Amino acid sequence: MYTLLKQQGRARRGMLETVHGTIQTPVFMNVATAGAIKGGLSSHDLTEVKCQVELCNTYHLHLRPGNDVVRKMGGLHKFIGWEGPILTDSGGFQVFSLAKLRKIEEIGVTFASHIDGRKVFMGPEESMQIQADLGATIAMAFDECIENPAEYDYTERSIARTTRWLMRCKDEVARLNAMPDAINPKQMLFGINQGSTYEDLRIRHMKEIAELDLDGYAIGGLAVGESAEEMYRIIDIVEPHMPEEKARYLMGVGTPLNIIEAVRRGVDMFDCVMPSRNARHGTLYTWEGVRVLGNAKYMTDSEPIDATCGCSTCQKYSRAYLRHLLVAKELLAYRLLVVHNMWFYNTLMKRIRDELDAGTFDAFCTKYLPILGERI
Amino acid sequence: MYTLLKQQGRARRGMLETVHGTIQTPVFMNVATAGAIKGGLSSHDLTEVKCQVELCNTYHLHLRPGNDVVRKMGGLHKFIGWEGPILTDSGGFQVFSLAKLRKIEEIGVTFASHIDGRKVFMGPEESMQIQADLGATIAMAFDECIENPAEYDYTERSIARTTRWLMRCKDEVARLNAMPDAINPKQMLFGINQGSTYEDLRIRHMKEIAELDLDGYAIGGLAVGESAEEMYRIIDIVEPHMPEEKARYLMGVGTPLNIIEAVRRGVDMFDCVMPSRNARHGTLYTWEGVRVLGNAKYMTDSEPIDATCGCSTCQKYSRAYLRHLLVAKELLAYRLLVVHNMWFYNTLMKRIRDELDAGTFDAFCTKYLPILGERI
Repeated sequence: MYTLLKQQGRARRGMLETVHGTIQTPVFMNVATAGAIKGGLSSHDLTEVKCQVELCNTYHLHLRPGNDVVRKMGGLHKFIGWEGPILTDSGGFQVFSLAKLRKIEEIGVTFASHIDGRKVFMGPEESMQIQADLGATIAMAFDECIENPAEYDYTERSIARTTRWLMRCKDEVARLNAMPDAINPKQMLFGINQGSTYEDLRIRHMKEIAELDLDGYAIGGLAVGESAEEMYRIIDIVEPHMPEEKARYLMGVGTPLNIIEAVRRGVDMFDCVMPSRNARHGTLYTWEGVRVLGNAKYMTDSEPIDATCGCSTCQKYSRAYLRHLLVAKELLAYRLLVVHNMWFYNTLMKRIRDELDAGTFDAFCTKYLPILGERI
Repeated sequence: MYTLLKQQGRARRGMLETVHGTIQTPVFMNVATAGAIKGGLSSHDLTEVKCQVELCNTYHLHLRPGNDVVRKMGGLHKFIGWEGPILTDSGGFQVFSLAKLRKIEEIGVTFASHIDGRKVFMGPEESMQIQADLGATIAMAFDECIENPAEYDYTERSIARTTRWLMRCKDEVARLNAMPDAINPKQMLFGINQGSTYEDLRIRHMKEIAELDLDGYAIGGLAVGESAEEMYRIIDIVEPHMPEEKARYLMGVGTPLNIIEAVRRGVDMFDCVMPSRNARHGTLYTWEGVRVLGNAKYMTDSEPIDATCGCSTCQKYSRAYLRHLLVAKELLAYRLLVVHNMWFYNTLMKRIRDELDAGTFDAFCTKYLPILGERI
């Protein structure tokens, strides 16, 4: 259950209670696609980097090791050793971005696995079954993630189908939660708003799915190539139609700037591969801006990545050593740098929550929006 | 200074006092080639896996990041964040195994870097200078690591030159240790016995270098393709000529069986990339034998790798999860599995020391030699 604690402008400070613990929002969910953060972070490290919610992937875990395996092991929490909340995305986005040879029908999507080309079918019921096997805290609805740009007519037909799929998801989650062997009988379901960049379709779809009284609502299909301004415009027009008393999740977003701008527009939850992917390439977030560690000027720099940072990497290692590990392609580099970036993102969210609690979020935005995107 | 505490047969229980702490022997040194254990272990993890000595590589660190960089950063201990003893090998082995286009002269070796083809010269003085810049606890002499098999005549000329090089190394270490800006003014020097598989040359060379009164002596040029039996034969004939009151180090060896057999023959120190390399391929050491984690039978196995193991991986993760990470090529797999194998090796050595302390080492060998090499 989501509780709105405080508001500053449209920015919301809230909390989302789940069977696996209470999530303080705004929150950034840490992406562990196949049950592990890319770069080598363990569940122990996730606690250390102040992760609140781990996000795992229905599509990847279905293909490997298989949701049947995870179910046999007692569900994802037990399998990966993480007791906190887990959100699983539905596989919708991956079916449309990773898989090949897709065939979309009313019943669902047939596609070829990106791992071995094997033919796989996934529809709303299959996605919900997989997420039930995983025992996720929050399941995401199975939707069509439309390509950008998309034709108006196609988008209109697609969102109508996504609504029908959502109703099937809702029924299926209710059925699966009632099963005597349900791994998480209180699994929550979030719906996903689509509609490409068409304002009227976005609004129409949001109104339709809002009526289904789900546990939360996501804005999907953004951060797929459109400009940041266009993304903000879509949030601006959709947000007034999102139920106030439900958590709001902007999928796959984004940079620290994107996140702050979206919080200002009333979004509560985020996820993105950017902090871990950028870390593996030596692009590091700090409170002074973005530091590119490969730069030769760091070769004998004994300072930590960010002197104000509390992460274990900044407590122990110099820019010089980290740069050396990165250049030498030592796996330790990826891990230590991902620890830093995940800590930064989770700390950024904590800072946003604190500023909202204190009523100083506007001043925070004025100070940090110009800084955080700078290359230093 | 090495102190022999106890002996059972030829097996020795001892300790080696250094400026960076006392090493209990027999000991396995954990290989961190370029200043990090392959697989993503940090200096914090090294403490956790009960590492006593870290082994780093003169050749690799000279090429990248450069010993000048490490010196500027205050030496290797400070650079990598490890306070315990560090042994650096001399670069000799790598010059002869990794580098291309070698030219060997009395003054030293000219070779092309395996990283960028750059022409590099290294002789005894250069190797000692690099190891002084690194501030290693123990420096290894610069030797010629002869190919196997080698001609008798060539081997004879080579060991004579290696002895001359060793005398230059000894003089250079004395000179560098006396420098006012020495990073470790008490750097120790170990000599290296060579002689291919020729018993008379091995003995002649060992007698020559024993006279130089160094801090320790290594047997080099083994584990390069000869059989285990041949390796044991060489140890058997060299060992009686190694000074009793000095530490003895068998370079680049080996499996748990090799190590136990060498301890039985009077060796004190070991190093090998095997535990970390095998871990990255899912080959894991246990007290019941060698477990190959990729095996399909582990797909839903909720047991740890080894139920009797105290490592953090075995405390937290199932074979099923670790196998999944390995198959999915998640970096976390490499790290968690390397933690296990390093723990196993370090614990094996602790067990050997305890059995020597208790006078039960023979019974230990009788029980475990048949088991440890088995595939289970």
